[in-house]
Amino acid sequence: MHPDHLPEDCRPISNLLSRIGDKWTILVLRVLAEGEPIRFKELHRAIGGISQRMLTVTLRNLERDGLVIRTVYPTIPPRVEYALSERGVGLQQAMLPLFMWTKENAKDIYRSQIAFDLAKQDAVTRR
Amino acid sequence: MHPDHLPEDCRPISNLLSRIGDKWTILVLRVLAEGEPIRFKELHRAIGGISQRMLTVTLRNLERDGLVIRTVYPTIPPRVEYALSERGVGLQQAMLPLFMWTKENAKDIYRSQIAFDLAKQDAVTRR
Repeated sequence: MHPDHLPEDCRPISNLLSRIGDKWTILVLRVLAEGEPIRFKELHRAIGGISQRMLTVTLRNLERDGLVIRTVYPTIPPRVEYALSERGVGLQQAMLPLFMWTKENAKDIYRSQIAFDLAKQDAVTRR
Repeated sequence: MHPDHLPEDCRPISNLLSRIGDKWTILVLRVLAEGEPIRFKELHRAIGGISQRMLTVTLRNLERDGLVIRTVYPTIPPRVEYALSERGVGLQQAMLPLFMWTKENAKDIYRSQIAFDLAKQDAVTRR
């Protein structure tokens, strides 16, 4: 019913997923999925609230995964652009159903959370 | 091209995603998706390496989101069972393309990571 091998199978996947599921990674992928290659400064502007350091780390990890292509143009100063690789586009597409689901269910989930917290509070008050 | 409102739109979604993308949450959802309601101890056994404390927290968050239903049967001692709610089944289904993609791409991503690290090492050595 609950085969013992399941967690072993899942672990590499869940490790990857929890990295990809990182808030900043998702935002970077979303902006890059808009289309054209984009420069660091534009990307930084498009993603409110991310530090330059965190954006650098996020992009570097995505490049390391082969999901983002970093192109350096030998101008002075060098122009550096970021774009989704083919693999990155595949990931973005595979994520769409989850994005849609999350968008559709975000409010209901929020309502459930409030109801849950109120019920707990109530239980404490009645003690 | 990169509308300014995008990050604002994305933030609640990405917050939710990064919680759902948590390694243990994914594993719990996977085991629960196998079907029948399951008791805490069975779940703990099925997910190798999770502490009881972490499993408790993970289940509680999922229950709070309305993704998992916790049923207490008034036996002595009480029997407690966990199952996916309808919403939880929807989430599991929305996650399937991402699971498939991750499974299909895990090896290539791993190869990219190794190539990336070797290239960096090489660049350092040549300095």
